[in-house]
Amino acid sequence: MMTKTHSLDMQAYTKPRRDAIESELESVLSKWENDKRVPMILSESMRYSLMSPGKRMRALLCLAACETVLYIKNGAHSESQDYDLNNFNQFNKTVFEQVKALACSIEMIHAMSLIHDDLPCLDNDDMRRGKATNHVVFGEAMALLAGDALILRAVENIIEGTPESVSKDAVLEVIKELSIAAGAPGMVGGQVFDLLKDEDVKRIHDEKTGALIAFSLWSGARFAMKDGVSVATKEQLDALREFGLVLGLAFQIADDLLDINGSAEVIGKTPGKDVASDKVTWVSIFGEDGARKKLSQLQEQGEALLTDHNLNFAPLPVLFELLRFAITRSH
Amino acid sequence: MMTKTHSLDMQAYTKPRRDAIESELESVLSKWENDKRVPMILSESMRYSLMSPGKRMRALLCLAACETVLYIKNGAHSESQDYDLNNFNQFNKTVFEQVKALACSIEMIHAMSLIHDDLPCLDNDDMRRGKATNHVVFGEAMALLAGDALILRAVENIIEGTPESVSKDAVLEVIKELSIAAGAPGMVGGQVFDLLKDEDVKRIHDEKTGALIAFSLWSGARFAMKDGVSVATKEQLDALREFGLVLGLAFQIADDLLDINGSAEVIGKTPGKDVASDKVTWVSIFGEDGARKKLSQLQEQGEALLTDHNLNFAPLPVLFELLRFAITRSH
Repeated sequence: MMTKTHSLDMQAYTKPRRDAIESELESVLSKWENDKRVPMILSESMRYSLMSPGKRMRALLCLAACETVLYIKNGAHSESQDYDLNNFNQFNKTVFEQVKALACSIEMIHAMSLIHDDLPCLDNDDMRRGKATNHVVFGEAMALLAGDALILRAVENIIEGTPESVSKDAVLEVIKELSIAAGAPGMVGGQVFDLLKDEDVKRIHDEKTGALIAFSLWSGARFAMKDGVSVATKEQLDALREFGLVLGLAFQIADDLLDINGSAEVIGKTPGKDVASDKVTWVSIFGEDGARKKLSQLQEQGEALLTDHNLNFAPLPVLFELLRFAITRSH
Repeated sequence: MMTKTHSLDMQAYTKPRRDAIESELESVLSKWENDKRVPMILSESMRYSLMSPGKRMRALLCLAACETVLYIKNGAHSESQDYDLNNFNQFNKTVFEQVKALACSIEMIHAMSLIHDDLPCLDNDDMRRGKATNHVVFGEAMALLAGDALILRAVENIIEGTPESVSKDAVLEVIKELSIAAGAPGMVGGQVFDLLKDEDVKRIHDEKTGALIAFSLWSGARFAMKDGVSVATKEQLDALREFGLVLGLAFQIADDLLDINGSAEVIGKTPGKDVASDKVTWVSIFGEDGARKKLSQLQEQGEALLTDHNLNFAPLPVLFELLRFAITRSH
């Protein structure tokens, strides 16, 4: 039963899927750029940040969650070639169709959050992923407006690009949860707590980073449909959401560690900013050792979550791998 | 047939409806404020702008459009007391329930646009509706984030607050059109064209102001349901949208005229800003006389639109009145 799971290769799995996501983003952007109502410079600003090289982690998690619950439902433990995740075959492409708009919209929300966070009135960062930040290239006003536009495009794109096979109930629920995860009770709220130097660093990370990652996994599973019916169980949905919070916290702590130990080339942005700006981080509160210890705990917790809830198939190793990557890159 | 139409009193019509909208906004805000995930200062910043005294014009237009098509469909030209719009009776309250969440969400989008437009990197305005602007009170970072949060709350609120009697198709279509009207092809795009001092002043106004007003009317009619079925005809929907563009342009030109002739007390914001910032306005391109002439044309055009499409019942005089108000207040 676990044979295929262990034979799944992270590169073979992620590469064609990441390419498919990039290609879908490109196709959506091109469509927007042909709309005469949209100022060209605004489109350029949106494209600059959205197509900036990135891991597409959130989009991949969304797709992986959808595949996981769908393949388990479909009896993926059988020997069917359909479920060979090392290939991005026709069957896998059909699954991709269900979530591709959603996955791209999550990347739009993520890109928007980076643009606004980098603005002078917030983090005032002029380097991101090794490139000049949006407002450095396009000016503050355009960066502000490109971020606003990306939020709305993300919502529009889910409605426009999700196929009929996904129920309208699921689409409405997913848009509502995205609004919460990205908004005042989630990402935006977390940014405010961060700004206020709130002492509850876990809450800052859970809202600022965890909420959108948890949403990515939850929503991917929520969009998994077979014959027009949702296949994810409540238990699976809850477990994936919780796993997302674990993953988000691990990423954020790894990021905090990188800020003190990494170089600009490795992390693609200015190091030492957290310390300089007196930011509340896991490291500033619990020290480097405390942060590393927490990372190990999170790895155990994440693995236990998936195993306990029988999500032990298909992209599971990839989800683990992402968690391990978060942990090891900070060493 | 036109008797009741002419007997409708603008104050009697708008007052109870505006009160109902304010009360609904208050109830939504209170619910948000009880959410421990949301930083208190963020809620305060959102409340400050959302509850700032205003005409609630967009929400009223949304409700008026819904009432118009529903009452026509219901045979409102009969003598039934139900259709007495001078009273906000039980029947009218039932109609209000259908669109109250939508109407409030439009006000959230409008409030958000004012917060972001007033920021130093855009219009750099420190006075709005006679009060200090959001960033003057809460700082730039909070104003930026409150605006972001309001966009997402607006979307969430439509899904959360719209009753089951409105079809899911209508909800999805309305959210998609709101994303377009407020986003890159609409309000945000118009702000960019404004920033670029684009020479096509009609396009600036249509996108920056007209799109959301047109959406308010269109979406109110789109949400009009009888026994679970949409009642607005395509002709009505198109005519209301077009009327919205006329109304938006009239308001904007009236605003341009006020900027050169009004006092801070009358217009509630700093006068003379357009001229000082070398803004492209109808007045700067066609002169004061050209602007006044255009306003008269728009009044004729707006009246003709409604009459030609048999929208000559119920809140029609209110819509006219709003148009006349836009025109006369600039004299």
